[in-house]
Amino acid sequence: MNYPNGIKKNITTKAKSTNDSNLSHKNRGMTLEGELNVTNEYYRDIDKAYIYKKPTPIKIVKVDYPSRDKAVIKEAYFTIPSTTDYNGLYNGYYIDFEAKETISKTSFALNNIHPHQIEHLKNINKHNGISFLIVRFTTLNMTFLLTTEKLLKYMEETSKKSIPVDFFKQEGYLIKDGYTPRIDYLKIIDELIGGKHNG
Amino acid sequence: MNYPNGIKKNITTKAKSTNDSNLSHKNRGMTLEGELNVTNEYYRDIDKAYIYKKPTPIKIVKVDYPSRDKAVIKEAYFTIPSTTDYNGLYNGYYIDFEAKETISKTSFALNNIHPHQIEHLKNINKHNGISFLIVRFTTLNMTFLLTTEKLLKYMEETSKKSIPVDFFKQEGYLIKDGYTPRIDYLKIIDELIGGKHNG
Repeated sequence: MNYPNGIKKNITTKAKSTNDSNLSHKNRGMTLEGELNVTNEYYRDIDKAYIYKKPTPIKIVKVDYPSRDKAVIKEAYFTIPSTTDYNGLYNGYYIDFEAKETISKTSFALNNIHPHQIEHLKNINKHNGISFLIVRFTTLNMTFLLTTEKLLKYMEETSKKSIPVDFFKQEGYLIKDGYTPRIDYLKIIDELIGGKHNG
Repeated sequence: MNYPNGIKKNITTKAKSTNDSNLSHKNRGMTLEGELNVTNEYYRDIDKAYIYKKPTPIKIVKVDYPSRDKAVIKEAYFTIPSTTDYNGLYNGYYIDFEAKETISKTSFALNNIHPHQIEHLKNINKHNGISFLIVRFTTLNMTFLLTTEKLLKYMEETSKKSIPVDFFKQEGYLIKDGYTPRIDYLKIIDELIGGKHNG
């Protein structure tokens, strides 16, 4: 359970890549992380937003230096991330989110997110940043954006250890698959910002 | 030259730790990175800002799995960071900066910052984020905050490969050493924000 998100996701994807037939050709073989990376790259290319995936946090124990300007890490361990995977800047707004995949057809298990990550999302919200989750139900081939407000609302109102897909359908935003960008989540952020301004 | 900033700084510090006598007791043995980490931790503790150092970017080549829930990285390499070391959220503002130490008494060599990092700082500025450099002249025991505007101004107006300490004194902001927080750079950001609003 203490694999970093990236690695974990890759393993999950490899594990299910044999029964991907129910996924669209567009998505087959590409993880949510991969699609978010090309999406964020596209946002940068068109000078729209500067959002990056943070490097995987690791604890380096042993490093060899075969030559002066070369270093090889010989022993290191994955550490639990203290924050979320993605953050950056969009039109003056601080953006911060965590992205997860699940093969479940019915619900998203909350133990996919570390408690301190939820605390982090809460703090970002409180200090006028924009924080949310992006959750893909790979088997259903549906990707949702769920705001931190809705996530916290759910966790306060229920003691359940997972969020049913219906909650995402009702309280979240379905992110339609596209080509450029692959996952246009900023389109939803635009709605949210607009809503805030109107409200 | 392709060590990551963190590692590089540690090596530098170890290298100079023998002739630290001219550094104040408060700073002796603590790197700029270390002081920024405790400062950012303090900002979080008092619920003032949520700014973190990004993990060191590495390319993982070989991972062993001695047991199901244990992973050991056996071969990995440091990669050049695509962005800056620090970013986060302060009162709705996106904060982004790079921090460097130099043992030079006279100037800060620009090759300490990768061109794409400068490009990144420029992009952050353009999109209404707050970006800057924090540069410590360890031998002089002086730490400066230099805004991206001033950095770009200098690079446009001169073809020099280094920034003299006098430029930092004139165009930058001296960050006074403290205890809590150790390096109160947000105090300077408050001035900059206030200035913007008044201007």
